[in-house]
Amino acid sequence: MFDVAAAQQRIAPYIHRTPLLQSALLNDLADAELFFKCENLQKVGAFKARGACNAVLSLSDEDATKGVATHSSGNHGAALAWAAAIRDIPATIVVPRNAKQIKKDAISSYGGRIVECEPTLSARESTLAEIVTESGANFIPPYDDDRIISGQGTVALEIVDQVQNLDVAITPVGGGGLLAGCLLGFKDTGTAVFGAEPEGADDAYRSLKQGTRIASHSPNTFCDGLLTTLGEKNFDIICDRVTDVLLVSDEAVVEAMALIWTRLKLVVEPSAAIVLAAILRHKAQFRGRRIALVLSGGNVDLKGLPF
Amino acid sequence: MFDVAAAQQRIAPYIHRTPLLQSALLNDLADAELFFKCENLQKVGAFKARGACNAVLSLSDEDATKGVATHSSGNHGAALAWAAAIRDIPATIVVPRNAKQIKKDAISSYGGRIVECEPTLSARESTLAEIVTESGANFIPPYDDDRIISGQGTVALEIVDQVQNLDVAITPVGGGGLLAGCLLGFKDTGTAVFGAEPEGADDAYRSLKQGTRIASHSPNTFCDGLLTTLGEKNFDIICDRVTDVLLVSDEAVVEAMALIWTRLKLVVEPSAAIVLAAILRHKAQFRGRRIALVLSGGNVDLKGLPF
Repeated sequence: MFDVAAAQQRIAPYIHRTPLLQSALLNDLADAELFFKCENLQKVGAFKARGACNAVLSLSDEDATKGVATHSSGNHGAALAWAAAIRDIPATIVVPRNAKQIKKDAISSYGGRIVECEPTLSARESTLAEIVTESGANFIPPYDDDRIISGQGTVALEIVDQVQNLDVAITPVGGGGLLAGCLLGFKDTGTAVFGAEPEGADDAYRSLKQGTRIASHSPNTFCDGLLTTLGEKNFDIICDRVTDVLLVSDEAVVEAMALIWTRLKLVVEPSAAIVLAAILRHKAQFRGRRIALVLSGGNVDLKGLPF
Repeated sequence: MFDVAAAQQRIAPYIHRTPLLQSALLNDLADAELFFKCENLQKVGAFKARGACNAVLSLSDEDATKGVATHSSGNHGAALAWAAAIRDIPATIVVPRNAKQIKKDAISSYGGRIVECEPTLSARESTLAEIVTESGANFIPPYDDDRIISGQGTVALEIVDQVQNLDVAITPVGGGGLLAGCLLGFKDTGTAVFGAEPEGADDAYRSLKQGTRIASHSPNTFCDGLLTTLGEKNFDIICDRVTDVLLVSDEAVVEAMALIWTRLKLVVEPSAAIVLAAILRHKAQFRGRRIALVLSGGNVDLKGLPF
């Protein structure tokens, strides 16, 4: 069951209420009024802390004792390890052998146990299934899950509280946890919600246009947080409620990333910068509007910058 | 006359009330409770907006019509151009010919007029004197000035309002505007205020130890915002009130900068990162304390990163 308001109450003591920042220069550039929701400043450096925290805190005491497990090569693994530490329960994260060291280090730093597997989806799933069978650990999926979607939706509730008369909100879309959650969070507010997706990983865009979910694809994009395929529950909510999904080239993402770093003074990952790139690319459509842009995360390796 | 409270009232409508951020990981690393005051998120990307705004708004209407002028190769020039635009008065900034293009662009983007000169202090002063004589423009010094010092001190008043029971505050020290202002702002609060200075530009440290101001030096540091010599008024206040000035190597600054970028997800300049470097270097002295660290600015060229 989706319950964004309950999630907000549940996770409030543990997460940051992140600031909403503005830049006169970026407003001029977009010819609109932009409000940047800084989830890069969230715990573990990404909105993923919200959903993981909500899922872990939703477990019964009995279930919780068996710990949690997931597979992830990105921010969800670190977020789940962090959330498990709040309840002092074990977290096991299945990580493809070729995942970046910086991601593994993040999981370890929050006390998560890493189990490596071959870098295929089937290896990830079978390794995780073994762990769940052996330990009884609760599988916490990265996005296709009511508790996760509700948790991510708390971003929208905070924005609603921080700024009035918002015309538009835009979030990145990968698996669809953040976008679906925000669609629920902005329900009945009159705010039109958009998704921003890389041209090289356009399964949400195509799923929406054809009206059925594309269950697998071969993504090719610099936005390493948006490689995943849209989830089922996520697709249903997005189909029902989204205004549109906008496609953005990787080149435009790098330009937007540089603007956010130099003008907003924020470290954001490519997957976060895509929202500004989408607004600038569709400038005529958004001219004069009041727009919330969700900067989803800031976990980047300083050794691999595109500048 | 110094009046930090009056400055706060005067500039409040124009500046950002910047957030105070925390990081559990950096707290662990320092074994202390750290509160980062994000002046990199201030207008023009630095605390300098506060002093410049206070100085410009303090001018009588008659004086203001003649505009303002200064010499600067850094953030003060951009801040003055920005502040002059608030009153719709002209700003002329004398800039050494070899100043970075990014700094010149910032001045121009706020509508400031740039006059180039040879890269020597005497050329800067004589060029500025000519402009002031010809135009009657009001010279707004970068730091050795009551209005500037009072404006920078508003950083401290905001911190006092944002966090209770602070043991320590630390700011970078170059010309001494920010440090002197914060010393006045934290007066009677019981907070011990420190300055952080590069080993290669240690004139404030040496001035304090010998009890007389060192009026010129040959700095050599990566912290390009801290090359200036301590001002007279600044020195008097610092001598009277500072707890200590701590020296930091450039290597430690680069390490602290990487920590702030990757852990706080904030773009800060080297001159800002020096405060974290100082706390980590003197860890034993600060263990267990509640410490405000002023991140002074975030104006960096992405093409010249030290990582």
